[in-house]
Amino acid sequence: MIRVTVWNEYNGTQNFPHYPRGIHEYIKDFLNACEGIEATSQIQFCEGEGLTEEILSHTDVLVYWAHGFHELLSEGAAERVVRHVQQGMGVVFLHSAHMSKPFRRLMGTTCTLKWREAAERERLWLIDRNHPLAQGLPECIVIPHEEMYGERFDIPVPDELVGIGWFQGGEVMRSVCCYRRGLGRVIYLQPGHETYPVYTQPEIQKLIENAVRYAAPVSRAEKVECDWVQKPQEEIK
Amino acid sequence: MIRVTVWNEYNGTQNFPHYPRGIHEYIKDFLNACEGIEATSQIQFCEGEGLTEEILSHTDVLVYWAHGFHELLSEGAAERVVRHVQQGMGVVFLHSAHMSKPFRRLMGTTCTLKWREAAERERLWLIDRNHPLAQGLPECIVIPHEEMYGERFDIPVPDELVGIGWFQGGEVMRSVCCYRRGLGRVIYLQPGHETYPVYTQPEIQKLIENAVRYAAPVSRAEKVECDWVQKPQEEIK
Amino acid sequence: MIRVTVWNEYNGTQNFPHYPRGIHEYIKDFLNACEGIEATSQIQFCEGEGLTEEILSHTDVLVYWAHGFHELLSEGAAERVVRHVQQGMGVVFLHSAHMSKPFRRLMGTTCTLKWREAAERERLWLIDRNHPLAQGLPECIVIPHEEMYGERFDIPVPDELVGIGWFQGGEVMRSVCCYRRGLGRVIYLQPGHETYPVYTQPEIQKLIENAVRYAAPVSRAEKVECDWVQKPQEEIK
Amino acid sequence: MIRVTVWNEYNGTQNFPHYPRGIHEYIKDFLNACEGIEATSQIQFCEGEGLTEEILSHTDVLVYWAHGFHELLSEGAAERVVRHVQQGMGVVFLHSAHMSKPFRRLMGTTCTLKWREAAERERLWLIDRNHPLAQGLPECIVIPHEEMYGERFDIPVPDELVGIGWFQGGEVMRSVCCYRRGLGRVIYLQPGHETYPVYTQPEIQKLIENAVRYAAPVSRAEKVECDWVQKPQEEIK
Repeated sequence: MIRVTVWNEYNGTQNFPHYPRGIHEYIKDFLNACEGIEATSQIQFCEGEGLTEEILSHTDVLVYWAHGFHELLSEGAAERVVRHVQQGMGVVFLHSAHMSKPFRRLMGTTCTLKWREAAERERLWLIDRNHPLAQGLPECIVIPHEEMYGERFDIPVPDELVGIGWFQGGEVMRSVCCYRRGLGRVIYLQPGHETYPVYTQPEIQKLIENAVRYAAPVSRAEKVECDWVQKPQEEIK
Repeated sequence: MIRVTVWNEYNGTQNFPHYPRGIHEYIKDFLNACEGIEATSQIQFCEGEGLTEEILSHTDVLVYWAHGFHELLSEGAAERVVRHVQQGMGVVFLHSAHMSKPFRRLMGTTCTLKWREAAERERLWLIDRNHPLAQGLPECIVIPHEEMYGERFDIPVPDELVGIGWFQGGEVMRSVCCYRRGLGRVIYLQPGHETYPVYTQPEIQKLIENAVRYAAPVSRAEKVECDWVQKPQEEIK
Repeated sequence: MIRVTVWNEYNGTQNFPHYPRGIHEYIKDFLNACEGIEATSQIQFCEGEGLTEEILSHTDVLVYWAHGFHELLSEGAAERVVRHVQQGMGVVFLHSAHMSKPFRRLMGTTCTLKWREAAERERLWLIDRNHPLAQGLPECIVIPHEEMYGERFDIPVPDELVGIGWFQGGEVMRSVCCYRRGLGRVIYLQPGHETYPVYTQPEIQKLIENAVRYAAPVSRAEKVECDWVQKPQEEIK
Repeated sequence: MIRVTVWNEYNGTQNFPHYPRGIHEYIKDFLNACEGIEATSQIQFCEGEGLTEEILSHTDVLVYWAHGFHELLSEGAAERVVRHVQQGMGVVFLHSAHMSKPFRRLMGTTCTLKWREAAERERLWLIDRNHPLAQGLPECIVIPHEEMYGERFDIPVPDELVGIGWFQGGEVMRSVCCYRRGLGRVIYLQPGHETYPVYTQPEIQKLIENAVRYAAPVSRAEKVECDWVQKPQEEIK
């Protein structure tokens, strides 16, 4: 059973017509309908910011959505997410989470990109057909209306580039990217602007499900630290 | 002319027999003997920690050595280094700088490794023979005595893996690694324990010179930020 | 059920004391003891060279061992292996198979390396602790006696570098490497010289089992060919 | 001085209005106008196919254009190109050369892709702003009319992905890719359909010039072969 925590900056004032109870609740629900996944949700504006040591210790994969309140997240919460990833927790950053503190710390880059809100069509091409993230999906997912996110997307070269987005207005985007950081996997999925019903598309739900399964930890460390190796394995002459 | 700043945590109490005036002065001197390189030095224990906005703005490549005082570096200084790299400054982290704040922030990992002080022999194999860092160097550099640094070295997969270290006591190490972070290059070079005369070896000096030339910026940004693209390049129907 | 074909150049004159019935039979037997794996064996010196269209079509993962008769393999057989990999068949090349025709064609490089027979100790470090190939294995596998294989190993940069070998005589080797070629996975595992009982070590058997599971195809194509796309998906103005 | 050989399948029957003397002559001429480059041209339909040992030995970078006669190239000529690349010669494959024998042998994949001739607009985004191939170029090159080449482009994961193409009809393409094969660099540049004046655009000329400079060999081997290392560097106990 993969234990997923769907996290949202949600503060109760966000009224997105397609997600009346919040994006976190919507994603949690469709993930709970997937076999072998057990999802709960957390929000930013509560005690512990929904990212306490207790919560993260019991999370296999954190699914992270945020847009407007990145800078209000405490340093401590950002550090906790980073540390748990390094120790093996998986994390899936959705859409505007590219500018979140934990993502930027895991990347070491500014994570900036081009953007435009013009209700334009996106064609998301899955270029690595045999990648676990592409299973059960067509080679091209059409999103009728999406916020444009385009290159230069300032990220490190992905360990695995799985999808490239085409936008009607003329841009391209490395939209589906996978990284390892320590023992944990980091996945970025570009789709998901809040004013369009992107997460209601079955293909996007499948993509998130695939990402959760791929990010699930194989093993998990109590801690990761320097080892002092007193005795050489080989005799030194 | 490549403007290099050689930075050291140096606090005046470090008495390393092979570097009586400090490692920074020693490296600065041999870099200044290289054509097209102009090196100055800075130390941690001074006003601005040797990493002021002014200094970094006039640095093409920062060469960074530190061992014992990583945690005393201010958050602000670490952030400034990271930001300048993202804007195009090159940086070469030497030996124990793998645990420095700027390196760990650029990597997003713990950067821990195995280590042992046993005056053992290292054989540093340059496996990418045509890489700029390997120019003028033999395929194997023998370091008579070196501190062992070994895998698991917790770093992201290098963009370019140039050298692998073999240690007499039985370990291996990804010893020469290159990354891009934003517009800047980040290079890690494992050789250089302070109690052995590693930097007096001509091959190691050549390796550092090559790293400086490779890390030198092609272009440099004033700032890197999100672009809001108001008008689509293509007409959206 | 993963259908494995263990292939050997075996011509009946090879008398390796540790594998009286041939390396292929030995590997076949321990793979057949693994849950979910069904292994058969084939040899080079027979009608169809053990690599007929029929055999490859019913093979999920080909395990390939050869040392002395690479050049006697027909062009046609080499091409068939390459084509089936491109269409999704997995392949695990063992030890001296680095110089086989199919491996060199899949790599596009000479695949040469350094070697020496001196019954020396190898320490195989698995540097990517969370990789599927490292599951159930210690971070360092000690092989008491192995033929030295060392860098420069002339291969393309691996998609995934999982293991680095340390040899007693002073060399290092990228010993465990993974690639994608078309829809298929290609894995190279350096251990396995015929005069030492390398394949009798439980860790090496586990490594081969892991490689077989990882190379098993997710999907398989009937053919891979150029697509002519007559109609644009978007209207062209 | 970089010695470039511009090679074309040219057989005299190709009448491309924008290149009355052949694409090879056109490219040769603009390369000869670049400082430090000395270009000559060769064609397929002549003695030695324009790819003799003599020609390749005196070529630093081969620029290769072909479309309709890939299968008429002899195995010997294809092998010679591959071998010279492995020994250090650079090669730049243009447009439809993705299906040429030498490119496919260097890649180990089918190199197939989607295509469509519909005189559509391409926007070529250079996503690695500091890469040598992007120097002096805008982040987006607009090609008014180009043949569509789109994903799935069946190539190995590029060592460096420099440019992504956007096509008006809805596709994307990894359009600018760099690889190392042995000591040589292999660069693929997608632009250049023969019926549109793509090579007359100054940005595309600059891109090819940049590719030539980047592919130029740092060093060159007489031969690349296995080394038998008789004596261990370290004493084996």
